[in-house]
Amino acid sequence: MKKAGFFYCILFFLSAATVRAQSVPLQWQEVAAGIWKATIGQPENVNLLKAAGAQPRQEALQQLGARNFPLPKEDCYAAIQEGKIYLRFPLQQEEQLYGLGLHFQTVNQRGRILNLHVDHYGETDNGRTHAPVPFYVSDKGYGVLINSARYITVYAGTGVRVDSKTPAMPQDRNTDPSWNPQPYSDAVEMLVPAPGTEIYVFAGNTPMEVVQRYNLFNGGGVLPPKWGLGFTERMPTLSTAADIRNEVAAFETHRFPLDFIGLEPGWQTKAYPCTFEWDKRRYPDPAAFTKEMLDKGIRLNLWLNPYLSPASSLYPAVKPLSGSHTVWNGLVPDFTLPAAEQIYKNLFTKTHLDIGVSGYKIDEVDGYDFWLWPDVATFPSGTAAEQMRQVYGLLLQRMTTAWFKEKNKRTYGLIRASNAGASSFPYVIYNDYYNHRDFITALCNSSFIGVLWTPEVRASKTAEEWLRRMQSVCFSPMAMLNAWADGTKPWSYPEVEKQVNEVAVLRMRLLPYLYSTFAQYYFEGKPPVRAMNLVDGFAFRNEAVKGALNATDNPYEMAVRKDVGNQFMLGDYLLVAPMFAGEVKRTVILPQGKWYDFYTGKYAGAGEVIEVAPGLDKIPVFVKDGGIIPMIPPVMRATGNGVLPLEVRHYGELPGSSQVYDDDGETFDYQQGKYTTYLLTAAKDRHGRWKGTVQVRNPLKLQQQYANIKWVFMQ
Amino acid sequence: MKKAGFFYCILFFLSAATVRAQSVPLQWQEVAAGIWKATIGQPENVNLLKAAGAQPRQEALQQLGARNFPLPKEDCYAAIQEGKIYLRFPLQQEEQLYGLGLHFQTVNQRGRILNLHVDHYGETDNGRTHAPVPFYVSDKGYGVLINSARYITVYAGTGVRVDSKTPAMPQDRNTDPSWNPQPYSDAVEMLVPAPGTEIYVFAGNTPMEVVQRYNLFNGGGVLPPKWGLGFTERMPTLSTAADIRNEVAAFETHRFPLDFIGLEPGWQTKAYPCTFEWDKRRYPDPAAFTKEMLDKGIRLNLWLNPYLSPASSLYPAVKPLSGSHTVWNGLVPDFTLPAAEQIYKNLFTKTHLDIGVSGYKIDEVDGYDFWLWPDVATFPSGTAAEQMRQVYGLLLQRMTTAWFKEKNKRTYGLIRASNAGASSFPYVIYNDYYNHRDFITALCNSSFIGVLWTPEVRASKTAEEWLRRMQSVCFSPMAMLNAWADGTKPWSYPEVEKQVNEVAVLRMRLLPYLYSTFAQYYFEGKPPVRAMNLVDGFAFRNEAVKGALNATDNPYEMAVRKDVGNQFMLGDYLLVAPMFAGEVKRTVILPQGKWYDFYTGKYAGAGEVIEVAPGLDKIPVFVKDGGIIPMIPPVMRATGNGVLPLEVRHYGELPGSSQVYDDDGETFDYQQGKYTTYLLTAAKDRHGRWKGTVQVRNPLKLQQQYANIKWVFMQ
Repeated sequence: MKKAGFFYCILFFLSAATVRAQSVPLQWQEVAAGIWKATIGQPENVNLLKAAGAQPRQEALQQLGARNFPLPKEDCYAAIQEGKIYLRFPLQQEEQLYGLGLHFQTVNQRGRILNLHVDHYGETDNGRTHAPVPFYVSDKGYGVLINSARYITVYAGTGVRVDSKTPAMPQDRNTDPSWNPQPYSDAVEMLVPAPGTEIYVFAGNTPMEVVQRYNLFNGGGVLPPKWGLGFTERMPTLSTAADIRNEVAAFETHRFPLDFIGLEPGWQTKAYPCTFEWDKRRYPDPAAFTKEMLDKGIRLNLWLNPYLSPASSLYPAVKPLSGSHTVWNGLVPDFTLPAAEQIYKNLFTKTHLDIGVSGYKIDEVDGYDFWLWPDVATFPSGTAAEQMRQVYGLLLQRMTTAWFKEKNKRTYGLIRASNAGASSFPYVIYNDYYNHRDFITALCNSSFIGVLWTPEVRASKTAEEWLRRMQSVCFSPMAMLNAWADGTKPWSYPEVEKQVNEVAVLRMRLLPYLYSTFAQYYFEGKPPVRAMNLVDGFAFRNEAVKGALNATDNPYEMAVRKDVGNQFMLGDYLLVAPMFAGEVKRTVILPQGKWYDFYTGKYAGAGEVIEVAPGLDKIPVFVKDGGIIPMIPPVMRATGNGVLPLEVRHYGELPGSSQVYDDDGETFDYQQGKYTTYLLTAAKDRHGRWKGTVQVRNPLKLQQQYANIKWVFMQ
Repeated sequence: MKKAGFFYCILFFLSAATVRAQSVPLQWQEVAAGIWKATIGQPENVNLLKAAGAQPRQEALQQLGARNFPLPKEDCYAAIQEGKIYLRFPLQQEEQLYGLGLHFQTVNQRGRILNLHVDHYGETDNGRTHAPVPFYVSDKGYGVLINSARYITVYAGTGVRVDSKTPAMPQDRNTDPSWNPQPYSDAVEMLVPAPGTEIYVFAGNTPMEVVQRYNLFNGGGVLPPKWGLGFTERMPTLSTAADIRNEVAAFETHRFPLDFIGLEPGWQTKAYPCTFEWDKRRYPDPAAFTKEMLDKGIRLNLWLNPYLSPASSLYPAVKPLSGSHTVWNGLVPDFTLPAAEQIYKNLFTKTHLDIGVSGYKIDEVDGYDFWLWPDVATFPSGTAAEQMRQVYGLLLQRMTTAWFKEKNKRTYGLIRASNAGASSFPYVIYNDYYNHRDFITALCNSSFIGVLWTPEVRASKTAEEWLRRMQSVCFSPMAMLNAWADGTKPWSYPEVEKQVNEVAVLRMRLLPYLYSTFAQYYFEGKPPVRAMNLVDGFAFRNEAVKGALNATDNPYEMAVRKDVGNQFMLGDYLLVAPMFAGEVKRTVILPQGKWYDFYTGKYAGAGEVIEVAPGLDKIPVFVKDGGIIPMIPPVMRATGNGVLPLEVRHYGELPGSSQVYDDDGETFDYQQGKYTTYLLTAAKDRHGRWKGTVQVRNPLKLQQQYANIKWVFMQ
């Protein structure tokens, strides 16, 4: 007893001297309907939302309605520790968390630890990814965003505090077979290595509503130009104008859809680092060639990374506006400086945009560490290397998007790095990881964090794999064949050429549905691709199954976690369940309500797990009861002239109502209300026969117009 | 031109406002012969060397001689950036770097980026490892140590600065086939996220001399008790005293050597978190049982992790001295507080050390993140969670080593986390990774950073693998079978029982050589296991071979790097080249000079790459020309009474001279000069016949004594 007294004495002394966490009360201020902001410490000048520069769509947010603050305020804890910000938000038992970056292998993030860091994907879901968005969505109906451009560490329900109000019970591993290496944790804890930060909380009756608020707060989702939803191929890297001419002709010969072509590094005089100047040996007359292609209905997209070659005419002007370190010996412009952007803008608008180039593929703004600037680099604006890393992809997206917008032209391109605030950017993330199954999981995860992702196709070991990948990419935000290194063609596997063509054409036939789905992204904030966890009536819970002891492979008996990352919704009605090479069957988890086979209209199941064996030709797609799918006839280009007959399919037993969205497909005039909607309604008449009606709102005269609506009742 | 002028104007404004890196001149002060220290900023109260608490062996350092500062001082750059420390040290073309942590897959660290972070090993050499020691050794003969207990990021020759004095030339990837994704970098750059730090530079005419200085500066290498170099087995986790009795008997029946037995979690009343109290159901009388075992010449080693169960009697006293977060719901004592250490010491000495327990296996002080305290945790001493993570393994080693030293008893145990300053600790690092080949690479890497590593054996898929692993572990710092989960015995694969026994007995026969080799570690700082890169005359250079373009697997044509991590030196004379399951032959790189087969004395080669196919029975071992290997007859225990006849082998054509070291094998009296040496010299007499002589210095009366020296000339 004497000894214990002695220690308590010491403690008394210690407790006064050593409390280093200075707790700070969070003051929540409602900044939009259902969105609150708090500030702690001294927020930094550079942050994610500022880098993205998007403006909240206040009116659309108003329409989502008012909500109460969705968390117990007293359990939202903040402190300043060692000059860094410590944040804690409560978690309920069984609560699940989504978001926190573009993950490839996991969906539910509860129980995970992430260091959010813009990077290539290193094959582990650890927060180092192309879009490490510090935003999570709870299935309890709220979201939390940390608006800091720092490497934030998130303990998403892992830490167990001594002072927890709901502590886990200690277990004895010697005798208790239910011993759990990861005990219950009642909080998300975050370390923001910054002197201060803004924090946003988003309310919502459902996780989808939370995501909608997030996207609308960030300017609403992107509505791509129509041609952006067609098929695209990226050409082998040293292709010439003649090669492209031949390629376009070959697509025509093979009757394969094509809307835009990507030019890889060889269009420039030098690359890695880049000049951004046309190589006249391969492209003698870029303006004429671009026009020639446009006349064929083909857009050009230019590859680049932003690192500047000493051989570029821009070099002398950019050098003083660049970071201390190079990438591939190219300058890294400090694009937080308007002057640096302006130099690029001058060249890019004059020699690319003005001649009709449609967009960019912005490569290598993510990492990886071995060639990006190190964290010790400095930038002339004073932006830290770490901050620059977190926002560089955002800056490039914001800049280039604005240049096109000034010309009232939409663009649609590719980007390797993004972050919070990017919902409105016309860019799709891609990478080299090339794992088909994990590419689908990334599609699911993209839906929580306001980014788009393409499971691009490059090459395959077998015709089967080729087809399976093509089927997936045709149900994604960008239907892309990336042949930069392999030169593969859509028809490179003759044994499946017909099926590959069919699914590409099917994508083209679904353009009205796709385009309307993207319009929802802009107007309502609903992402076009949706993880199942954003779908009402999806009852499956991500499970953790106790692991088996293995001295080497699993010495701590870690649980095996099950996520649903291999199926997703495309818009309101289509459930897509890709097949992977080597599989002849798969299970599909159907949410509540009845579901029907897309191709046949046959009943598939309701709120249950089904097994499907669709054969090689088809990717399994299911339609929700009452679903309405507008389709056009097969077309080779997404845009054209004249009339497009519309086939409207209705599925199932429930009446339904759905809106087809249309506009000029390439300008921003829709943001001033210049768009048409077709309200399609399917219902039974008094004789019990299905009948479809259409109500056109705000009819516009467009170059290409829907007409001759034909209803098909799929039953 | 007008435009450029405008930008330069802006620049002028910027350069004044935004230089955030505040350069600080480094003042080098010689703190021991050939060792310099500089301080930048405000070094923190907690650092690695302080946590380790080792005292430099000034006298031994003096003996190594004086050296000049080994780097151009003007190129050692330091700055304070955003309150963090930025360090830069120069690199020459072709210079190679070793160290920076216990890596498993790479040896040369030049061109790598490491975030030094105590952690389990996640199967990637990224700095997250059990001993992320911030110390590197250059093949140009110097070493650099950063004495900070923070997560240091090291760019080991990757960044290319705009202001580099020796910049790499930009290349055009479009046209230049020699384009290199990782251009030449002329510096090591480091980010130390602390307001200040100490930096040490070590000189040396060779990399080995640098390592010697490092180890001597950190107290000299450990000399284990003799029994520590015998064979050890760790028992299945819930073993009882009776089980252990039976196991010891079984070892005797199988005539298999055994010196100490490890008790896994079941010796405690509760584990994960721990009570540190004997479970009387399994060990009714721990003191009597420990004595019973000691009487058989068997020591007991106790498993623990330091996290305290609420069921332990220590809990109330430790609670106020613990961190904010738990591990498996156990308290994390703040061992930077003497009071916390004292509480543990009281229980441990009374109930473990005083009854004869020989040491500990200290588990789970490394990570991984999912159960260790998060970086947001706080500790009553004010030590940051990050710092505590970096030093916890050191603290546990320092504490327990001191408790044994107070009793003038050496200990030898296992630890999962270590760091700089640990050379003198009697602990061997281990983990669950269990990749035989990579375990050997870890052995190599351990030699640069003052730690020991065991490629422990647990289980195997085949008898061949079992034997190959056993052969390796018997040539390592701890010959351990870790059967905690599998219960495997050395003789579990009857088809190789004989060979397993042979190699274990061979280790016992080599004890004089092993013990003398460890004595070198203490007296001269030379590590017992040595990477080839520490060996004079090892001419192989780690190569990088240009990678082949592959759109998915290698889109950036990354180079393939070749390291020599599959062979090592054990002491001055033995080159060990383990065989791996599935291999019937392998190449061995022999340093300059002639080398001989250990078993036969046959000439093997000189300064060349040879191929060997030793058969299943043997692990390839080669002896340097002139090498002298002292051996004893087969023994089952490393310690005993009476006389040990010594067989002294001499190999090759060169005369040789070598010292056998001996002492009482269990106390620290050797540190006061109580040890005997036998200087063995082999030379040809005037008739050209080999002759061996021995010169005994400071003969002591020991319980067990070398005698009857017999020379064997292996030719």
